[in-house]
Amino acid sequence: ERSGEQTFNTYCIACHMSGVAGAPRFGNHEDWQPRIDKGLDTLLKDAISGFRAMPPKGLCFDCSDDELKHAIEYMIDNSQQ
Amino acid sequence: ERSGEQTFNTYCIACHMSGVAGAPRFGNHEDWQPRIDKGLDTLLKDAISGFRAMPPKGLCFDCSDDELKHAIEYMIDNSQQ
Repeated sequence: ERSGEQTFNTYCIACHMSGVAGAPRFGNHEDWQPRIDKGLDTLLKDAISGFRAMPPKGLCFDCSDDELKHAIEYMIDNSQQ
Repeated sequence: ERSGEQTFNTYCIACHMSGVAGAPRFGNHEDWQPRIDKGLDTLLKDAISGFRAMPPKGLCFDCSDDELKHAIEYMIDNSQQ
């Protein structure tokens, strides 16, 4: 199983570092707070099914739900100021 | 082996349909002509290694070079007016 950081560095980083197409940027508290307010369950559901410009599973089709959850938690942890 | 259309519909489409982050849009001749002018070998090399906002292999890490090439050819074929 990959860590949240590993999954982030392989997949999520492509859009979530620079904020492609409105993706909440890594380390950016303002971008992340409204997402955090939705709750982790909703974020995970949206990440699995795809949401706005984000493709299903962030194109990590062999990611388990837990791996996606850990990647989201990694981004949330790093968005705290 | 996946067809170019299958690979496109699973991976490339996420950015290349709406033109996320400057990606040349599917079916858009003006977007594609400058890329076509570079030649297929250069396009394939850039797609494999990543280029500007495009992540390596378009995040299809289990794509063979041939599968990526066919996906590019599928996009080129569909950009012709």
